[in-house]
Parts: sequence; C-alpha cells; structure tokens
Amino acid sequence: MTTLSVFGAGSWGTALAHVLASNGHQVCLWCRRQEQAEFINSKRMNPDYLKDIPLAAGIYATWQLDEAATYSKNWVVAVPTQAIRTLFTSLQEFTPPISLCNVAKGIEIETLKCISQISKDFFPDTFYAVLSGPSHAEEVVRGFPTATIVASSSFETCQYWQRLFNSPRFRVYTGNDVAGVEIGGAVKNIIAIASGIAKAMNLGDNATAALVSRGLAEIMRLGAKMGAHPLTLAGLAGVGDLVVTCYSFHSRNFRLGKLLGEGKNLEEAKKILGQVAEGAFTVRAIVHLAREYDVELPIADSVYRLLYEGTSPKEELENLLTRDPKPEYPPAIFWS
Amino acid sequence: MTTLSVFGAGSWGTALAHVLASNGHQVCLWCRRQEQAEFINSKRMNPDYLKDIPLAAGIYATWQLDEAATYSKNWVVAVPTQAIRTLFTSLQEFTPPISLCNVAKGIEIETLKCISQISKDFFPDTFYAVLSGPSHAEEVVRGFPTATIVASSSFETCQYWQRLFNSPRFRVYTGNDVAGVEIGGAVKNIIAIASGIAKAMNLGDNATAALVSRGLAEIMRLGAKMGAHPLTLAGLAGVGDLVVTCYSFHSRNFRLGKLLGEGKNLEEAKKILGQVAEGAFTVRAIVHLAREYDVELPIADSVYRLLYEGTSPKEELENLLTRDPKPEYPPAIFWS
Repeated sequence: MTTLSVFGAGSWGTALAHVLASNGHQVCLWCRRQEQAEFINSKRMNPDYLKDIPLAAGIYATWQLDEAATYSKNWVVAVPTQAIRTLFTSLQEFTPPISLCNVAKGIEIETLKCISQISKDFFPDTFYAVLSGPSHAEEVVRGFPTATIVASSSFETCQYWQRLFNSPRFRVYTGNDVAGVEIGGAVKNIIAIASGIAKAMNLGDNATAALVSRGLAEIMRLGAKMGAHPLTLAGLAGVGDLVVTCYSFHSRNFRLGKLLGEGKNLEEAKKILGQVAEGAFTVRAIVHLAREYDVELPIADSVYRLLYEGTSPKEELENLLTRDPKPEYPPAIFWS
Repeated sequence: MTTLSVFGAGSWGTALAHVLASNGHQVCLWCRRQEQAEFINSKRMNPDYLKDIPLAAGIYATWQLDEAATYSKNWVVAVPTQAIRTLFTSLQEFTPPISLCNVAKGIEIETLKCISQISKDFFPDTFYAVLSGPSHAEEVVRGFPTATIVASSSFETCQYWQRLFNSPRFRVYTGNDVAGVEIGGAVKNIIAIASGIAKAMNLGDNATAALVSRGLAEIMRLGAKMGAHPLTLAGLAGVGDLVVTCYSFHSRNFRLGKLLGEGKNLEEAKKILGQVAEGAFTVRAIVHLAREYDVELPIADSVYRLLYEGTSPKEELENLLTRDPKPEYPPAIFWS
C-alpha cells in the first residue's frame, strides 16, 4: 500500500485516483472547490465529470492544497496544461515530491514548454514520469479494458508508476521517450479537431483515415525535431490516443471540430461545449514550434487559421485533402 | 492518354478503372462473367459491387482474357489474393506487361508469398508496383477525397503510376518500401477482425484503440523481420488502412469479427456475408510467418484460434486485453 496525492479532480484525475485506490492505495484527491471535495467524501461520486459512477473507498478528497501537498511524496498532476504553472507555483512552498507523474496533455502557450520541462523548472530533483494513451476517463472508471504507457528517463521510475497503476483492466506499458509521449498527447488534439470538421462535412471514411495518417506524419515530423522517437508515436501515446480522439464523440476536441464544420466560430463553439478543448490552445503553441523547428504542418496550420483567422472550414479541408503530394521519395512519413 | 488493362471487376478493380478513365485514359476492364462485361458496356454501371454509381466513359469491359492481356502493356491486378496465381498462370501465354500495378491485399496461403514475389516468379522482367492505402471503393467512385500510396523499388515506376492515378480527389503518394506496403495491407485485415469482435462485445473505445495500437505493433514487428521499414507502416498503407478497416462497417473483415463476437462461427459468418473476408485467409499465412520469423503476434494468434480452433471470442479478447504488458524497456513497439 502506497499513499499518493492526485492534483485535479476533473474526469481524468478522478478516474486515476479511482484506479489507484482500487489497487489498494490511499489517495488524497485535491479538488479546487470545497463543495466538490465534500460531495466526493460523503457520496463517493463526482457527478460533474463522471455521472453516477461509484468511486473506490480509498479516495479521500480535500480542497486544501497544503493537505494534499503534505499527504504523500508521490504526486499525480491532473490539472489542465495551461493551469499547471499556477499550481506548481502554489506547491513550491511545500517540500517537493520524490516522484511526480503528469497525466495532462498539451504544451504551455506562453513558453512553448512541455510539462516535463515545466516540472524540471519547479522541482529539479523530483523523478518525473508521464502517463498517456487512449483512455476515456468514463470507460476507465467503469472498468472497460484500457492500455496506457508511462514514460520516464529513469527506468526505476517507470516501473514504480507501472506497479502503482497497473491492473488487468488498466494495463500500463513502459517507455523512456518522455518527449515522444508528451508530443503525441499534445498534437493529437489538433488532428482531432480536423477530424471533427471532416465528419461534420460528411467527407467520408477515406478522408478521416487520410487525416489520421497524415496527421500522424505531422506529429512524427515535429516530434523527430524535438527529440522524440518516431516509433513512440506509432504506439499507444501516438496512434492509440490519436484514433480514440479522432473517432469518438466523447472527445471535446472532436466535438469542437464538428461544431466548426457546422459553421460555428470558436466563441460560439465555446459556449456550446461549456469550455475550450485543449487542442484550441495547443495549436497556438504548435504553429510557433513548427516555425522554430522549420517543420511543415499543413493540418495544424489549417486548424490554426480557421480558429484564429476565421477562414472557412470548407476551403481549409478542401486544400488539405486535394493538394498535390510532395514529389520526394522515402521516407513517406517525412513529407507534407 | 495511356491505355491500361485492369484485371478484376470487383468493387476495387472497377473503382480504379473509373479513376483511370476519369483521368482521360483508355481502360480495358476484364470481368470473369460475360453478362457482367456486357452490362458494364451497355449501362455503364457495376451494380453487383457499386450499386447505381455511373462509371466513366473511357472504360471498355471484356470477359475475354486474351483481349485484356493484349490491350495494353500496363496491367492493374485487382483479383483476390488467393486467385492471383491462377490468373497469372493463364496470363503467362501472352507477352508480359512492361509495368504491373497490384492493388490486391493479402498473402498467398500455400506459399506464404507476398504478391510482389508471385509477380516476380511469373513476370521477372516487368516493373512491379503496389498501390494501397485507406480507400473504400464506393467512396472513391463517388469522388470523396482519398489518399493512397504507390510503392516500387524503381522510382520511375512509382512516378509513372502516380501520374496515371493521381487527381485532386485521389491523391497518390510514392514510396520505395514494397514489403512495408504489402505487409501493412495484409495484416490489417486480421486486426480488423479483432476490432469487430471487440465492437460486438461492447468493450469500449479504449479497447478498440488498444487493439489498433498493439495491432500496429504486431504489424511492425513482423514487418521489420520481413524487410519492411516500420515508418511505412506508420503511414497510409499501415495506420491509414488499419483505421479505415477497424472503424468502418463497410469493411468485410470488421463485419466478420462482429459476427464472431455475436457468437457465430466461421461457417455461419460466411453464409451471412456471402463470401469470406480476406483476413480469414491471411491469418493462416501470418501465424506460419510468425513462427518462421520468430515473432510474437498475440492478436493474430487469438484470431487464428477462434476462427480455426473454435475457442471463445470472450476468452480470447479477455486474454488479449488484460494480460501483463511485457516488462522490457524501449522500443515499446517491439514488445507484445
């Protein structure tokens, strides 16, 4: 039995707290709102995010940050990417954790940093790991079979988190490619927006598959320049997460794309969805990174233009899906 | 304007004849049955395979093999994999083509050969190319956007077929990895069967994405041993074709899996589908190749057992989706 603190009680943080508690661990789940913490403790449910699904008994929720920060030296970070710096700033007054596992996906817009880099800035001596893969929170809590990957530059850290999380219904593979896992998790949300647009426009199954494959090629091209191994991106944290996001109405990013494809603009879509999908942030970071690393990302460029420059989804998708393939020979993955 | 002979007037052969004729080429389409050829010539439709979709005027259908064989020195081969040897045997009495483009997907059961190898046995001096990628025939004929790849060991041959096939609605990338494109197209059908079973059993989106990613890992492991480049399998002929097959009710292989998951056996499923899905053949070749090359393919093994040894789909999927991930470190793609 191990103690853990999970920061963030959205659907994913709650689901992972449930996985850990179901494996017999004691979990302190930090919520932003007092009522939410009290509701979880008294009713063992988190209805804002996970409907009426009962949560494991080993979860203790709190809204007091100091309590969560001192509860355990194993931290799981599950707040939205753009909120991580604020959280880490508040957590800096406590003793840093021995091991930290990030489960958020995205890139910080203002600094263009991955979460591993932010973590290193705040907690340089903490062992860092990232957990990712195709894993809708609701299915995880309901016990549907799920496969994920945890990556760390330290093999012992990987094995440590694998032991904590792994169960027959929540399988955890391990890897050393932190950059690959983080980039895969961030960029797939952008491709999912494009996939949602194609769905709204009834462009067919061939077009979606073309977007998925050429989107993966974009992820790999950028990833390779940023130190990722392309084969990591062909695994659970790349292809796996990409397809679960591009083919599912559960995904906020896919739904954002669908609304855009139906003619809504970003503001209107935000109102309907109740919040902004992470891909709408990440795409702003990604087009900057693409320029910095001199990589062509036609799908990300299109999504950026139609979100922030008001171009037409029809024209953008038409351009994407009918332009001439680059004439170069292998390797195919590295062409636009 | 170029002349071409397309052998096989199923949905895919007909669709490609239509693409070529729409690009302004003269196409002779060989059909097995006289009535079918006459119907196509008089009505410009192929209703057995492509409903009421009108076909381009540049298609001339024939049921006489000598006519098709001598019509052009560019051959497109679109008969089912297990029928290719018989076709090539009959074609051997004519002058061999200068260039041959295979569009069938699969591995010959009796010899464990890819189609490039069979082609080499019969027509050693012919330039060989293979066209693949996510491309439901019906969507292609209806003009939905589609992206494909043509591979050949000769760059000129690639460019030649790219020029013939490419159009804004049917984009053709090029590559030199014939083995990669052929193995991707063959093995994806097996993974699609597993995906159909998971769908029938309502195992959820996470499980399907896990099957797709770990299925891709199997394709890459086997491909690497057979001379394929793993990154080809991360492209249109691997991931692209895999997702279009695993997520679509259009796919015969997916539908076969769905029937198995609903408790039907192979014989019953055959009757319902009217024909056997290619994956049911290919899996027999693949389990042999896996043994020969000493590669672990747990998904292919499961599909083989439940098709030919009558094991239960529930148990096989349970085993696949809950077993312990291998403890090895990178590269993740090469673990089972």
